[in-house]
Amino acid sequence: MTFANIGTLGALPGRRDELIAHLTRPWTEVPEGCLLYEVGASDDAPDTVFVAELWTSAEAHAASLQLPSVRASIEAARPLLSGEFGGYRFDVVGSPLRS
Amino acid sequence: MTFANIGTLGALPGRRDELIAHLTRPWTEVPEGCLLYEVGASDDAPDTVFVAELWTSAEAHAASLQLPSVRASIEAARPLLSGEFGGYRFDVVGSPLRS
Repeated sequence: MTFANIGTLGALPGRRDELIAHLTRPWTEVPEGCLLYEVGASDDAPDTVFVAELWTSAEAHAASLQLPSVRASIEAARPLLSGEFGGYRFDVVGSPLRS
Repeated sequence: MTFANIGTLGALPGRRDELIAHLTRPWTEVPEGCLLYEVGASDDAPDTVFVAELWTSAEAHAASLQLPSVRASIEAARPLLSGEFGGYRFDVVGSPLRS
């Protein structure tokens, strides 16, 4: 079942754009099962980075977090993070765009 | 600029699946600029429906809300809603899946 992970990541003051650059750098290795990974920003939340991800399953998402390349990327981002996280995780049950 | 609208809709107790059925019914008219519209649910939030939408622009999203078909759909969903809403709106600034 398609799994959605929507996340908000707090950046330290003034570091948001570095965090965005980090998160949007093209992956050399695309984690198996990743269908969508969009990174965003909003003028209304100047120290927040948004991520909207779709995966083939919750298990594929969990497995990706164990990949050495993903673990290294998370470590590299850590100095930019405020420690504030939010978001939603849910199973996709349908779309009005599909019949 | 691609615009993301992530929403949570609270359903009245026991009415979540009706709300899901309503939101996933295939559209007869796809609003211009709609790129993605995924509806979801989570065992952790039994009275919540999640929606993850991507639009070609914030303006396209706003315009869709004025379409007669969309306005009628929102009206039809109203009796199922608890009145609790949440979510995030942001501009997509990139993806590691694109170079």
